[in-house]
Amino acid sequence: MKQDGAFYPDWTNEPPKEKSYRSIFKWGDPHGFKHPNRKLYALLKEKLHLTDDDFKHKRQTGNAEVRIAQSVRLSNARIDTFRDLVGAENVDTDDYSRVRFATGKTTEEAMMLREGVVGPVADLVLHPRDKEDVLKVVEYCDQQRIPIYVYGGGSSVTLGLRPTKGGVTLVMSTHMNRVLNFSEINQTITVEPGIMGPDYERALNRAPELYKAERRYTCGHFPQSFEYSTVGGWIVTLGSGQESSYYGDVYDLVVSQEYVTPAGCFKTADFPATATGPKINDIMKGSEGAFGVLVSATLKVFRYCPQNDQNFAFMFPGWEAAVAASREISQGEFGMPSVFRISDAEETDVALRLYGIEGSIIDKFLRLRGFRPSERCLFIGRSQGERSFAKNVKRNVTKICRRFGGMYLTGYPVRRWEHGRYTDPYMREDLNDYGILIDTLETAVTWETIHKVHQGVRAFVKSRPDTICMTHASHFYPQGTNLYFIFITRAQDLKEYRKFHAGIIDHIERRGGSLSHHHGVGRLMAPWMERHMGSAQMNVLRALKNHFDPNNIMNPGGALGLDMDAQSVQK
Amino acid sequence: MKQDGAFYPDWTNEPPKEKSYRSIFKWGDPHGFKHPNRKLYALLKEKLHLTDDDFKHKRQTGNAEVRIAQSVRLSNARIDTFRDLVGAENVDTDDYSRVRFATGKTTEEAMMLREGVVGPVADLVLHPRDKEDVLKVVEYCDQQRIPIYVYGGGSSVTLGLRPTKGGVTLVMSTHMNRVLNFSEINQTITVEPGIMGPDYERALNRAPELYKAERRYTCGHFPQSFEYSTVGGWIVTLGSGQESSYYGDVYDLVVSQEYVTPAGCFKTADFPATATGPKINDIMKGSEGAFGVLVSATLKVFRYCPQNDQNFAFMFPGWEAAVAASREISQGEFGMPSVFRISDAEETDVALRLYGIEGSIIDKFLRLRGFRPSERCLFIGRSQGERSFAKNVKRNVTKICRRFGGMYLTGYPVRRWEHGRYTDPYMREDLNDYGILIDTLETAVTWETIHKVHQGVRAFVKSRPDTICMTHASHFYPQGTNLYFIFITRAQDLKEYRKFHAGIIDHIERRGGSLSHHHGVGRLMAPWMERHMGSAQMNVLRALKNHFDPNNIMNPGGALGLDMDAQSVQK
Repeated sequence: MKQDGAFYPDWTNEPPKEKSYRSIFKWGDPHGFKHPNRKLYALLKEKLHLTDDDFKHKRQTGNAEVRIAQSVRLSNARIDTFRDLVGAENVDTDDYSRVRFATGKTTEEAMMLREGVVGPVADLVLHPRDKEDVLKVVEYCDQQRIPIYVYGGGSSVTLGLRPTKGGVTLVMSTHMNRVLNFSEINQTITVEPGIMGPDYERALNRAPELYKAERRYTCGHFPQSFEYSTVGGWIVTLGSGQESSYYGDVYDLVVSQEYVTPAGCFKTADFPATATGPKINDIMKGSEGAFGVLVSATLKVFRYCPQNDQNFAFMFPGWEAAVAASREISQGEFGMPSVFRISDAEETDVALRLYGIEGSIIDKFLRLRGFRPSERCLFIGRSQGERSFAKNVKRNVTKICRRFGGMYLTGYPVRRWEHGRYTDPYMREDLNDYGILIDTLETAVTWETIHKVHQGVRAFVKSRPDTICMTHASHFYPQGTNLYFIFITRAQDLKEYRKFHAGIIDHIERRGGSLSHHHGVGRLMAPWMERHMGSAQMNVLRALKNHFDPNNIMNPGGALGLDMDAQSVQK
Repeated sequence: MKQDGAFYPDWTNEPPKEKSYRSIFKWGDPHGFKHPNRKLYALLKEKLHLTDDDFKHKRQTGNAEVRIAQSVRLSNARIDTFRDLVGAENVDTDDYSRVRFATGKTTEEAMMLREGVVGPVADLVLHPRDKEDVLKVVEYCDQQRIPIYVYGGGSSVTLGLRPTKGGVTLVMSTHMNRVLNFSEINQTITVEPGIMGPDYERALNRAPELYKAERRYTCGHFPQSFEYSTVGGWIVTLGSGQESSYYGDVYDLVVSQEYVTPAGCFKTADFPATATGPKINDIMKGSEGAFGVLVSATLKVFRYCPQNDQNFAFMFPGWEAAVAASREISQGEFGMPSVFRISDAEETDVALRLYGIEGSIIDKFLRLRGFRPSERCLFIGRSQGERSFAKNVKRNVTKICRRFGGMYLTGYPVRRWEHGRYTDPYMREDLNDYGILIDTLETAVTWETIHKVHQGVRAFVKSRPDTICMTHASHFYPQGTNLYFIFITRAQDLKEYRKFHAGIIDHIERRGGSLSHHHGVGRLMAPWMERHMGSAQMNVLRALKNHFDPNNIMNPGGALGLDMDAQSVQK
């Protein structure tokens, strides 16, 4: 497609074919698209040394109908039993469902499916109607030694949903997506785990209409996957929202939980704090389906008062200054911004280019003031809460940013960021269509280790020719933050890509970052778990696993690094 | 002793005799005293229906020298081995040490020791010099099946230190009380577990002098036992300080920990957050010595800026209004006060009497304004942090309190409270000398359950004739708070007292309170653990216990309710 005389790729605007591979790996709404704009297109060509010719022929688009060779390996008698347990209409045996509910959103899975290559699938897909259905299924599967996998919204980027050992996958979002209780007095909500982010937030925003509440509420948890992830998924993978610096990670938000495990069912108490020994409620968070099935959870909610929001953005002369200011803010004892994000020089350069700032009059002004390309770093933020509190946070942030050489940029960049906060993942399919891979990895760091991890990982990523590596920190604590790496490159094939990807994880871990700040472990980080945690701590997880699931039916085959093949373990 | 013509008891002003029972059960500094003042003395007589005659003859004062019948039941060869392991000078075999380090600060222990009755004692008391000593002792004891108990500051009020099965007690505060690292950049401190509260806080206050830090810091954790408790003790029993509403409970403050367990040693990572599965760091908090020995911990610290403190106090017409205002404050999204305490009507009446307010011109004014005795409730608070933040918290608190009918009382009551914050426990021995028992129990509640628990427990306590029952809430969260019951009564003997005490715990639990908000479980709450947690959750604790300590040498005999005698379990 030509426009303004310049070539511009023919990005896909058609929803994927029904029941196709593409309909599985495509992000989000089948009719939803966000194409790289002309500026990004130019940047990609420049940085990856591509020409228009590289964007003239799409690779395999994965629009063929899903077909798999693996037949259902469960006897008809067993299939009938599952139909009795959860209702015949809630048991899928078709190829498409088996592949769809075995797949998350990793680049690896997308690359495979594009080529019609299917990884392990479950034999049956079940859609439990309620806690009792889950109970019956877990009991039966434990008795019969049938593996159980759990699927929420399908946004896992860690191969967390891959049913390595077959068996059944429970889809929680089909029926188990209800609000069970709303307590305005305790400021909590109790939900089934399969409720999707937008439905959950909508229920809270509409609390006066739905629950006769005096006020409107918000969940405070807005990961990039918000629109296509479930509350249960957030909890069992330890997610963090884009406003976690103020509201907390999901770990902080969960008051109590109810689980069905092979070793029995239990519901933890909803006390705001207790001193009754090690907290079972917290042990279950992050268990990624390896201990049991989450069937309900009670979470903290917050007053919804967007009228008090304060936006702000600053440009810093360099990364060190942006980090130093962020640390000062995080340790300043005046409360935290909710949105709080600093971009390193490469991410800032890309952002300024995409926003049309590079080369503009603003850019000239910035350069004159000493904010130079390849050095300058963008900071965006928002404070929330009670009106004076939010204003005081902004006032302190402004003072600190100025002290560290930051220049105020108004609140515009925050609104700009907000506009795309959930839609950027849509660009992946466009890039992949032309053989360009975009992927992310993320880690947690302390203030002491942030520069070592950032520099070390960047050096590795950039050692690959023609590779973009953008980094930001976006979840802040008094003791440190996270680093989120976005890299764009071309790879010949999956094997080469896997090697590169594994190399990044390896460098993150060796430089002193955590294996994950908020994406979880799944099967992607699993090979590094033993090295990262040490055997003494892995043995604690194994002891818990053995207690809850002595027959290893819950998410078996590598989840959390618990039952790895010896040859996969990273030394 | 007479003064102003009126009789006033001859309170003890002598430090306990050396090596006496009294020197063990007396609170705090041997030379420290805080006697009930004349107003409290009058109140006790009135409420407990006593006369001056009841205060003329002291009960047994426990000043005899400690002597015990139980000889050391370890062979000389084993004793020699321990001397080799930790140094001969760090092994105590004498009666006094064995009793002292077997004893906490429960009323039960004080009553027994007064009469020269000694409970279970360890055979040896060891004072490990460092982590390596602990490692050697744990290895040897595991091999030889010798029970290990751990003693920090000795302030347990749950029989947590009682060496039910003999063996050895490790005293952590003798040598293992060092600061191992201070990181101003991460805003953390790493300490050995035996460091006492004041030494810990002093190191942080003096960070510029000691660690060349740019600023002074505070630990933010100030339990009533602060002067006589250790950082390790806070962690393994899940303590909360009197400023926890702002700084967090100790659970929130611990970044990482290092443990020596029979199953191996490990140190958790100090990332500010991770998504690498269930958090081993959190599993260990509250383990009360039943899993292993804490040998070092890294904790968050905070900027020390007392110049920004804002004090405030209010009188409310009643408890319901005080609770409603407290909830509104806790959910108000403007940050929390640090000191935050509401007293129920009986506690308020006692406080006003002790402060000399009752009957004064202020009292008349209060009554005129509708704040009546037996109804009115005192609220005291302090906000901290950055100057404008602290001021904004006070401004919002004031607005809310007025809205709920509260009257501003200046900051004076807070300073008055602060003056006695660590010294009130000294009064216990005075009262006990005359057969009057003062004791406390505490629980966590949600906003939905607070009134049911408060009313139910009070009704039970007050059903005992001549009993004072004062209640306050002093640790606040958006989802609830705690209730702290102080009761004063006379009891014929230990058996009668135990029955009364158990009745209170039973009512707390049945009404829906937690077994403990911040005192821990120990052996006092242990009989209720199975009922309170349910078997499925207790089995998780048992699985962890069995993993860490398969030979049950760590704090065996009832700790956390893990290995209870069947007849002790509360149904």
